[in-house]
Amino acid sequence: MKKTAVVIDTGSTKASICRAVSHHAHRSQFVAAHQIAGTENSGPEAAFSGLFSDKTNIICEKEKSSEWALNQANLLFNAIGVKTIYMDAEEHDRHVAYVSHLSHVSSFLLGQTVLDIERDEKNIFALASTGFASTVRLAKSSPDTWAPIFEQNSEYLSQALLEYIMHLQKFHYHLVKHDSKELHRILSRANEIRRILEGLELKNSKKETQEGAVTPKL
Amino acid sequence: MKKTAVVIDTGSTKASICRAVSHHAHRSQFVAAHQIAGTENSGPEAAFSGLFSDKTNIICEKEKSSEWALNQANLLFNAIGVKTIYMDAEEHDRHVAYVSHLSHVSSFLLGQTVLDIERDEKNIFALASTGFASTVRLAKSSPDTWAPIFEQNSEYLSQALLEYIMHLQKFHYHLVKHDSKELHRILSRANEIRRILEGLELKNSKKETQEGAVTPKL
Repeated sequence: MKKTAVVIDTGSTKASICRAVSHHAHRSQFVAAHQIAGTENSGPEAAFSGLFSDKTNIICEKEKSSEWALNQANLLFNAIGVKTIYMDAEEHDRHVAYVSHLSHVSSFLLGQTVLDIERDEKNIFALASTGFASTVRLAKSSPDTWAPIFEQNSEYLSQALLEYIMHLQKFHYHLVKHDSKELHRILSRANEIRRILEGLELKNSKKETQEGAVTPKL
Repeated sequence: MKKTAVVIDTGSTKASICRAVSHHAHRSQFVAAHQIAGTENSGPEAAFSGLFSDKTNIICEKEKSSEWALNQANLLFNAIGVKTIYMDAEEHDRHVAYVSHLSHVSSFLLGQTVLDIERDEKNIFALASTGFASTVRLAKSSPDTWAPIFEQNSEYLSQALLEYIMHLQKFHYHLVKHDSKELHRILSRANEIRRILEGLELKNSKKETQEGAVTPKL
């Protein structure tokens, strides 16, 4: 490997790859990164202009990469329009388990549950609202992409899943008890996500109006 | 009540209202219906032109409504552009539990789980993808609307929830066992929802191109 070469990893989990290269002779030529961007579609045909613009890019273990390697990587990252933040690799995996991987699991298994019970697909077609489509959209994602991500992040994803299952079971308990007041209280607390989603929408709409300006400058 | 008067219920559960009116002297003047349309927003400001066009309308216990009442109701339903199908009230509640109410619960509690664990909202802002926003969108729905719906449909919703929790637990079991093959198999089966979602998208895009034609004809 030439001394000027830089290897950038862009996978969705960071702790395992960082552990794997930690004692490598050329560790400083390696940059561990992750761009939070993409859709439920995969492969080259799923690419579109502006995919990365204003999306978050996370660089992990910054201190183990040389200044040269980081600068080279940032030239590329700036060109595609991502905004870089820095994070510990374990922290990264813990946060994405909750904010990204858990949504994927919840969506995949919601799709599975509905397919399992509604054997007559006519009923899904007739009764599914746009809300259903939105909630199970991520179940269209590629198993080849996601099975290894889930497995590599199994520790944090397992914690996130147990937390989610616990909330579902608590809701179920109050549901069968017909405890209207508690059901209302649970939904009202969950409702606070509205504030965050509206912030995200604002961020995304800002992105869309700027789209024209973010053509790669490499 | 005048003999020509017609009462139309348009709520999201049908078995309890049908039971409540079943021995009413004027049962034949009542039509039990449900239009599968709406967004996560509620109140008059959430209305928009074309909200009902090409959406499914379900009439339950058709045989208990008079021909006059059904004709009057259908004049209205045709004018707003919904497509009417007929169903038993219990069947209705069972299907919507799986295809609509379960997605709402899964979304509300996913929002709750993330809020619970990510106390620093900056992380949600930085790391949430459009996938996360899509999956928790329904958590923005009104607790005043949904708590009573869940309670009225508690029997079928409870079954749906238990099934969903069972799938999540099975996934969790294979995750902690690092059973790559089984994880891949589960995701691949769930992936079959793609076919259904693509059918739904086709239906909705057809709707959008026809939008101009569906102004009320009342």
